[in-house]
Amino acid sequence: MTAYFCERALLPEGWEEDVLIDVTDGVIERVGIALTAEKEATVLAGLVIPGMANAHSHAFHRALRARTHALGGSFWTWRDLMYETAIKLTPDSYYELAVAVFAEMLEAGFTAVGEFHYLHHQADGTPYSEPNTMAQRVVDAANHVGIRITLLDTVFLHGGLDPDGYRPLSGNQLRFGDRTVERYLDRTSQLNLEGLSKVGTAIHSIRAVDPESIAVVGSALDRPTHAHLSEQPDENTQCLAAHNGTPTEVFHEAGVLSQSFTAVHATHPTPHDISLLGDSGASVCLCPTTERDLADGVGPASELKRAGARLCVGSDSHAVIDPFEEMRAIEMHERLTSHQRGVFHSADLITAASLDGYAAIGWQGGGRIAVGAPADLVCLGLGSNRLAGADRSLPDDAVVFSAGAGDVTDVVVAGRHLVSEGSHRSVATGEALDRAIQALFR
Amino acid sequence: MTAYFCERALLPEGWEEDVLIDVTDGVIERVGIALTAEKEATVLAGLVIPGMANAHSHAFHRALRARTHALGGSFWTWRDLMYETAIKLTPDSYYELAVAVFAEMLEAGFTAVGEFHYLHHQADGTPYSEPNTMAQRVVDAANHVGIRITLLDTVFLHGGLDPDGYRPLSGNQLRFGDRTVERYLDRTSQLNLEGLSKVGTAIHSIRAVDPESIAVVGSALDRPTHAHLSEQPDENTQCLAAHNGTPTEVFHEAGVLSQSFTAVHATHPTPHDISLLGDSGASVCLCPTTERDLADGVGPASELKRAGARLCVGSDSHAVIDPFEEMRAIEMHERLTSHQRGVFHSADLITAASLDGYAAIGWQGGGRIAVGAPADLVCLGLGSNRLAGADRSLPDDAVVFSAGAGDVTDVVVAGRHLVSEGSHRSVATGEALDRAIQALFR
Repeated sequence: MTAYFCERALLPEGWEEDVLIDVTDGVIERVGIALTAEKEATVLAGLVIPGMANAHSHAFHRALRARTHALGGSFWTWRDLMYETAIKLTPDSYYELAVAVFAEMLEAGFTAVGEFHYLHHQADGTPYSEPNTMAQRVVDAANHVGIRITLLDTVFLHGGLDPDGYRPLSGNQLRFGDRTVERYLDRTSQLNLEGLSKVGTAIHSIRAVDPESIAVVGSALDRPTHAHLSEQPDENTQCLAAHNGTPTEVFHEAGVLSQSFTAVHATHPTPHDISLLGDSGASVCLCPTTERDLADGVGPASELKRAGARLCVGSDSHAVIDPFEEMRAIEMHERLTSHQRGVFHSADLITAASLDGYAAIGWQGGGRIAVGAPADLVCLGLGSNRLAGADRSLPDDAVVFSAGAGDVTDVVVAGRHLVSEGSHRSVATGEALDRAIQALFR
Repeated sequence: MTAYFCERALLPEGWEEDVLIDVTDGVIERVGIALTAEKEATVLAGLVIPGMANAHSHAFHRALRARTHALGGSFWTWRDLMYETAIKLTPDSYYELAVAVFAEMLEAGFTAVGEFHYLHHQADGTPYSEPNTMAQRVVDAANHVGIRITLLDTVFLHGGLDPDGYRPLSGNQLRFGDRTVERYLDRTSQLNLEGLSKVGTAIHSIRAVDPESIAVVGSALDRPTHAHLSEQPDENTQCLAAHNGTPTEVFHEAGVLSQSFTAVHATHPTPHDISLLGDSGASVCLCPTTERDLADGVGPASELKRAGARLCVGSDSHAVIDPFEEMRAIEMHERLTSHQRGVFHSADLITAASLDGYAAIGWQGGGRIAVGAPADLVCLGLGSNRLAGADRSLPDDAVVFSAGAGDVTDVVVAGRHLVSEGSHRSVATGEALDRAIQALFR
């Protein structure tokens, strides 16, 4: 048994002081309040919150941070640069990069990641002799670092959507595709993960998967299913021209909108789309630091929430890896467009990042500090200039409006104390990032 | 003589390696390139950029960080909370708070501050026996910390603008006002600062100063002049109803738009306002982290720049104190509204924060690493997760798109090495902030 003693911890009922958390087999066995620290307990000083889920990640995009701006353009020109990086990765180089990126996430307070994975095959599209080699190396990287992972295995069949139909995959896209939905189902059925790893489904987008294949995948697989949805206005235009409906309408007609579905972005939905997403109980994964970096626009976050959608967050392209910045940006972007403050309660934004993020990637009941939940904890120190002067009676607001990734001192996943004093205890994260990224651009 | 040896430094011509900077009497006397470190030189490892100016600060607003969100509302409800804090400050408590806030700025890489100061009198409006007591204590705080300061001494005469005229000051506003423009001119003429401190003028806003008084102040004083301008749509509406012109038009007619004028915010200007600001060669101080926090909206930054206005940055309400986040947010907010990436060059954003910020607060020729300039330097370490993997050939982009205040290792002002290893060498900043802020809310 392991034990953690928290000065202050955010329980489902609210903040409590002097909280003793007993852990057995990676699960919280007991939560005691107003206790004194047992001798063997590890003391977590500051504010302890539940582990947070990075519900939308493309780990390799991290290599592009601050390397695509001088060239300007739009989302679509950025995508070409991203494809050029994708084509360079091998199982070994992706393993090295993913170790570093997952360690960066962990040090920032993300204890679980939904990895939207589509780098399946060799650069020309030829499968590896072991067809899930790339996926397995990404999962190995997560296991090495200790972060919880849902490998969202992506179906990606087409190279784009024209009014008269789909273009074939070509060039740098070839390695993403399984060619047919049957081959995708065959490959993905061979991925068996356990422990801190599980498999989910990703349907890349309406640009890359036709409605019939969406329906087939949706009915064949009973697991968390994610899709990019209306990130760009052009995606809507293309979909309307080809399918006479919005992307959300097409996904709805294909039968995949449900409580186990997560729409990623949903930046440009129609009012009808918002109703469909809300009525189905789907999740919407907001990625505000990426959405601003890629000039996507500001999505209707508060309308989606009011309609019934559950919100969660992802750092997506990893222009920034900081769960606090994601939570804060949801509110800040809403303020910029609505001219109203306090649209979201801080407590709800923390729930989005933790409990609802965990649920969206298939770890129901995780992302909270309660008996029976996975023992995933994040401790924020209060010593930084950012947090100095915080109101002790408003810890939620301090977490959301003042904190940053740099304030994370300790991270625990499945009871294991992986990060202390802000650093991963076995990975030299900064050096690992620099080595892996510089190697790609040499 | 003091000397600094920089691994890489941003000179007016671009980035150079192995740069030796000799300093005499606080001024850069020599800049040598591709040299080896002299024995006596202090080595600055990483990226050295010119000192940056926080061209719009209300130091005491820092006390409100993360304390006003739960209450929601708008800019105007936030303002009531801010007034409640303003009324509490005494010369001593403001000195303690300002020391801490200026130290936070310095550690974040701001080497100069334009302090838009309006807490002139006692809480009921009675002048202190020494009428510039509060201003002097704020300047003393800056001098104690070592940051360069321009005290923008503010004229604030009225309590608001109705269609039929100005309301008198009342309640929490009483301490801001000198009652008449003549008394303001008399008081401000007694403020004599030297060394790293100088005086400028602030005209609070069209809500607080009538057009006649704006004209009197503008013609009486030959020094940098700042004003809040069109931060909120309501301000425009009130001004149009009362004066039959926009705030910018009224300031133009009062004769104050010029190269020594800085419009703060300019979030909601008309096309005509943009032309007036651009044609006059005025500066526009953008405060994007505050503008999003206060739900002001996104201003037309790129249009203002194209029209001829010089841009600079300020952290204003200090919801965030981070010059890198301000620079980045100018581009990010533009992306969110324009759907285009790379609207601003990174180099231009650094110039806005350094050279143009210094000019806007009256330190012409500062904010650059060149012979004859004040020896104000900021060094960014490259060891953090944020900056790991940066492209060595794109240092401007690394500074603007990856860096954060936490990456600042060393800060030099007027040749004095004030911050090393990220911490002020004589102020315990976090503790000072916490002590000063908690005392206000006890």
